[in-house]
Amino acid sequence: MTPSTLKVGCAGAGRMGKRHAMNLLHRTPRADLVAIFTPDADEREWAKANLEPYGVAIYDDYDSMLQHTGLEAVLIATVTTVHAEQAIKAINTGKHVLCEKPLSTSAEISQSIVDAANKRPELKVMCGFSRRFDASYRDAWTKMSAGLIGKPSVIRSQTCDKIDPTGAFVAFAATSGGIFCDCSVHDIDLILWFYGQESKVKSVVASGITSLHPELREYNDCDNAVGIIEFYDDRVAYLYCSRMMAAGQEDTTEIIGTRGKLVVNGHAQRNLLSIFDASGARRELPAHYYERFEVAFVDEVNEFVASCLDDTQLPMQLSGAVDAVKIAKALQDSLVSHQRIWFKQNGERSDKALL
Amino acid sequence: MTPSTLKVGCAGAGRMGKRHAMNLLHRTPRADLVAIFTPDADEREWAKANLEPYGVAIYDDYDSMLQHTGLEAVLIATVTTVHAEQAIKAINTGKHVLCEKPLSTSAEISQSIVDAANKRPELKVMCGFSRRFDASYRDAWTKMSAGLIGKPSVIRSQTCDKIDPTGAFVAFAATSGGIFCDCSVHDIDLILWFYGQESKVKSVVASGITSLHPELREYNDCDNAVGIIEFYDDRVAYLYCSRMMAAGQEDTTEIIGTRGKLVVNGHAQRNLLSIFDASGARRELPAHYYERFEVAFVDEVNEFVASCLDDTQLPMQLSGAVDAVKIAKALQDSLVSHQRIWFKQNGERSDKALL
Amino acid sequence: MTPSTLKVGCAGAGRMGKRHAMNLLHRTPRADLVAIFTPDADEREWAKANLEPYGVAIYDDYDSMLQHTGLEAVLIATVTTVHAEQAIKAINTGKHVLCEKPLSTSAEISQSIVDAANKRPELKVMCGFSRRFDASYRDAWTKMSAGLIGKPSVIRSQTCDKIDPTGAFVAFAATSGGIFCDCSVHDIDLILWFYGQESKVKSVVASGITSLHPELREYNDCDNAVGIIEFYDDRVAYLYCSRMMAAGQEDTTEIIGTRGKLVVNGHAQRNLLSIFDASGARRELPAHYYERFEVAFVDEVNEFVASCLDDTQLPMQLSGAVDAVKIAKALQDSLVSHQRIWFKQNGERSDKALL
Amino acid sequence: MTPSTLKVGCAGAGRMGKRHAMNLLHRTPRADLVAIFTPDADEREWAKANLEPYGVAIYDDYDSMLQHTGLEAVLIATVTTVHAEQAIKAINTGKHVLCEKPLSTSAEISQSIVDAANKRPELKVMCGFSRRFDASYRDAWTKMSAGLIGKPSVIRSQTCDKIDPTGAFVAFAATSGGIFCDCSVHDIDLILWFYGQESKVKSVVASGITSLHPELREYNDCDNAVGIIEFYDDRVAYLYCSRMMAAGQEDTTEIIGTRGKLVVNGHAQRNLLSIFDASGARRELPAHYYERFEVAFVDEVNEFVASCLDDTQLPMQLSGAVDAVKIAKALQDSLVSHQRIWFKQNGERSDKALL
Repeated sequence: MTPSTLKVGCAGAGRMGKRHAMNLLHRTPRADLVAIFTPDADEREWAKANLEPYGVAIYDDYDSMLQHTGLEAVLIATVTTVHAEQAIKAINTGKHVLCEKPLSTSAEISQSIVDAANKRPELKVMCGFSRRFDASYRDAWTKMSAGLIGKPSVIRSQTCDKIDPTGAFVAFAATSGGIFCDCSVHDIDLILWFYGQESKVKSVVASGITSLHPELREYNDCDNAVGIIEFYDDRVAYLYCSRMMAAGQEDTTEIIGTRGKLVVNGHAQRNLLSIFDASGARRELPAHYYERFEVAFVDEVNEFVASCLDDTQLPMQLSGAVDAVKIAKALQDSLVSHQRIWFKQNGERSDKALL
Repeated sequence: MTPSTLKVGCAGAGRMGKRHAMNLLHRTPRADLVAIFTPDADEREWAKANLEPYGVAIYDDYDSMLQHTGLEAVLIATVTTVHAEQAIKAINTGKHVLCEKPLSTSAEISQSIVDAANKRPELKVMCGFSRRFDASYRDAWTKMSAGLIGKPSVIRSQTCDKIDPTGAFVAFAATSGGIFCDCSVHDIDLILWFYGQESKVKSVVASGITSLHPELREYNDCDNAVGIIEFYDDRVAYLYCSRMMAAGQEDTTEIIGTRGKLVVNGHAQRNLLSIFDASGARRELPAHYYERFEVAFVDEVNEFVASCLDDTQLPMQLSGAVDAVKIAKALQDSLVSHQRIWFKQNGERSDKALL
Repeated sequence: MTPSTLKVGCAGAGRMGKRHAMNLLHRTPRADLVAIFTPDADEREWAKANLEPYGVAIYDDYDSMLQHTGLEAVLIATVTTVHAEQAIKAINTGKHVLCEKPLSTSAEISQSIVDAANKRPELKVMCGFSRRFDASYRDAWTKMSAGLIGKPSVIRSQTCDKIDPTGAFVAFAATSGGIFCDCSVHDIDLILWFYGQESKVKSVVASGITSLHPELREYNDCDNAVGIIEFYDDRVAYLYCSRMMAAGQEDTTEIIGTRGKLVVNGHAQRNLLSIFDASGARRELPAHYYERFEVAFVDEVNEFVASCLDDTQLPMQLSGAVDAVKIAKALQDSLVSHQRIWFKQNGERSDKALL
Repeated sequence: MTPSTLKVGCAGAGRMGKRHAMNLLHRTPRADLVAIFTPDADEREWAKANLEPYGVAIYDDYDSMLQHTGLEAVLIATVTTVHAEQAIKAINTGKHVLCEKPLSTSAEISQSIVDAANKRPELKVMCGFSRRFDASYRDAWTKMSAGLIGKPSVIRSQTCDKIDPTGAFVAFAATSGGIFCDCSVHDIDLILWFYGQESKVKSVVASGITSLHPELREYNDCDNAVGIIEFYDDRVAYLYCSRMMAAGQEDTTEIIGTRGKLVVNGHAQRNLLSIFDASGARRELPAHYYERFEVAFVDEVNEFVASCLDDTQLPMQLSGAVDAVKIAKALQDSLVSHQRIWFKQNGERSDKALL
């Protein structure tokens, strides 16, 4: 008898939804993709061609998918604005949930998912911060935890996308929550992971420019931004996010400790090929985050599935995803106001400086 | 209705057999592992625990496995000495065959598989030179084919294993055919691929040492060896193979053309992490070839399966695997005799120099 | 007849003074070191042994050295606190001046040197920002100027010293002006160079920690700090300075433009050696800034000498050195006050935010 | 009183002669360039403009230069064919000699210099193998000598020039002794240095091609060649030399020991700049050997001068330069004959194989 598998439904069949669906179908041995929901007719056509032959049911209504017989878990890969509503519905109908990042661009709405999850402790609810599943970040974390670099005290982290000459992300700015919420939320999650729960944010401050797309200003957004995060326990982190990398995706993180430093992706590369020609010696870079993190996305869903089936602890706490949004939002606010934004030790914003 | 899949049996459940079986089970969407054969009781126990739950039948007799109902293809991952017999039997009973490298350490025996395959042109028979499926090698090949480096004229290629303090490979020397047959056969296959069918080998010559394991001399083998391969069309290749890498697996290839150079794995690395500490800045290396080429092994079997199901051309010709063995064997002979070994343009060895 | 040379006196024979003296003696073909001044008896002993044999006169009084017959130029490598007084005296007695950075930790005092120099336009007066003479930075500047990366819009720059277990820099904090004045002033000078005169600073903000040396707080200083500099023409720069690098000196600069990026020292290394052993593949790093920039220091003084002898334009304007101090000082102030500090377009600080 | 300096004459004012002359003039504090000899009128014009102003006497006759009052040493940078005659004359008139490599393309003629030097043990006579003075090679040697990599057993070394579209080296082939004598002699010297005097060559064998310049065959030469050197103490080395590098000079050496590996210039680079643009991330390479080894050339002559003045041991034995030529010549012979060439333990060639 074949070992039992997790029956999963996928919400969304856009760029990431398609990838998740294919991964659930072919690269997650312990999961069965049984259903997919998308409100988009073209995406349903795609599902008809690529998923239906494998017995995947297609829904144009999310609530109906939740009623699919035997459904045990939902992977939410829809637009951010509906993450919370769909996640809470899934939780309330007793499904495990893996929700793409961010939970929401609002910390309050994000918190509402945590609240819902807290009422159903038997369910596994996770936010998909894929980098936590990347082999290099995990290696860094393991080595840091073993004391290799002493106390980690400074983190530099950047999420920098390749230039998209179509400027597609400008339209996206209206709903993305801004560049810190869209890009840096990954870095912030990493920082919270590496510094650990005991580190509490004290302040953030940011600056940004619009080199290529001045029209982003209408959305209070930038195409390049930098920020600083201070922590109460004398640690600091600094961020860079950009839409302007000529060579490709460059997501780099340095964790600097009192006795050493760990660098993830200091030498960005698409593969192991070097090209020597009259222009010198070069390598190509990944074109986008999925080329960089594809394996991490697969590992993420496999671990989520294992945790659901075996009732083991998830690799990260859901509440951390709220903290990440809170900090990203504050950075985005600082980008506009130019003010340093202060947090009390309990995580609430403070109106006055807390020196 | 689920798309049809290829019913595959796996011969062998040793180190590579286990990996292939798990890949066939979980990472090859279009294949079903339906049976496994191994003469080893411990390996059958492993199969009972890991494969049987998924409906995989276990055989202690190869011929019986070939009779498994519906079996369409066999992946041969047994010891090299039985590759040929098993491959020919599989062919003769109408199965597609993916055979681990080398077909045999004898060129004649290798040829017998080709002969058998030629009689059954409807079958797909492939030798598993996994590097041909590695993304970096493929990128190199594509760029070379597009003319990026002019005419490729010099190739340097090495297969260098991490030091194994247990010296396990010494016992293996009795049947491995020697270090050129075991290690460099990959490099030779790459060279034949990059230079193409029109390039014919003219001569080979080799030298070797026994730095760590003088007892290898009893098997006419070495733990480090270098060799030169000359081609009739004014090209040359040179090889290094070793069992003595302190840091990890180092399989590097340089393809040098008249206008540029492509280097695969010039910067060997286990992942994208760099570690800065008092000893400097360092990275770790893969511990063994599977850590380096795991994805290539998965891609290899997926492509083989696709070719069987869709009746499309295999990505490489079986006869090339015979040529690779022929050259590897000549290098191994030269290692012992110290003579340069000459080949006529028709591929036969020549007793006299062909200047 | 030997071509005429510049008669130079060196003020200071501490760590950098000694290096400058030896360079003037042996590595600056067009200069003659004719005199040295130091108030320190031990340093005069050193000069007696190492310089006197070459005819260099030794002074324990700066004013007396200025009277040295034929003296044409002074290289000032004394402690920062006396730079200004000595530079102005030299200028007023008609000597060319190459003054170690910074001119002063006070912008006003720095400006007084510029004022003195402006009254003597026939004299060459330069502040020794050595990185401007480094081959890699120059290559970056040339390529940027040729348009290779479009409009440079974001600069990341760091000056990070190797951990000094003796903590010698703590005592130095009392007079150094703080970590931004001591370390980042180099990065700031580079940023002003790469962005050019037309770019005017709009605001700065900073944060810092004391990971290894909490006692630095007494001097309003930190051992790690990060800062952001905004410019009026929609550019931004961000900085990191540290005393905590385990592996060695890491001075890295990225200049990110609208069409590409230039990175200086993204792969810090002591030399061209890589070491592969059981811990992986590693390289060593420079132990300190002089190991990294030794050649730049030599080139700097040679170019200064050429400019004096040939009456050609200096490679940088003295006023830029005042701007660099002004910005470094503001960052250091922000480190303490946590406030963003604003600058009017005319370079004066503003009490209120200039959004 | 200024410390005494060594009065040096330079023979030759071609490409390398000019560089040596300028280095002797400006970058060797303990040497004085007092004279230069060149038979070439244009080169004498250059000397008149660049050296005469500093008091350097110009000679069109080598013997006359040797008579220059006070002359103590000669640096020989003329064409290889006159190295021996000039070196022997200098020795016989009591001058120290630094002779550019190779001493000669004939081992016998090379030996005649050693014989002359042996009769004048008070003189310092050195062959200019500049790589021995390169900081990275020295670091490798120091670490190897300290036991870092166990017993060095395999060396890979290459000297590869950037493509010269003018093909100037073809004309040079008539007198260069061939590519192994011209290029690989450096690698051979390094191998002898790293393996040490106790290692005796047992055999060599080589192969080559003419990818770009078939006309080299007329001179029994190639534009790319590979070779293998076996040693009696179970060590091996393998070489690659080329005129066909598209990106720049690539002189790389790997010293592989039983416990680790040292790589010099595994990451060839012109400086510390990386360029990221639409083609990826790249660095430029040195255009030629002098760009790579300039500092080594300066250090070489400074150490030679120190050894002359202080009567200390030279950093290498002259006889090694004969051994290097002997091996290079044998490789070149093997390139033509295709035969493996054997050496007795006493260094003489053997007509028969010595297995």
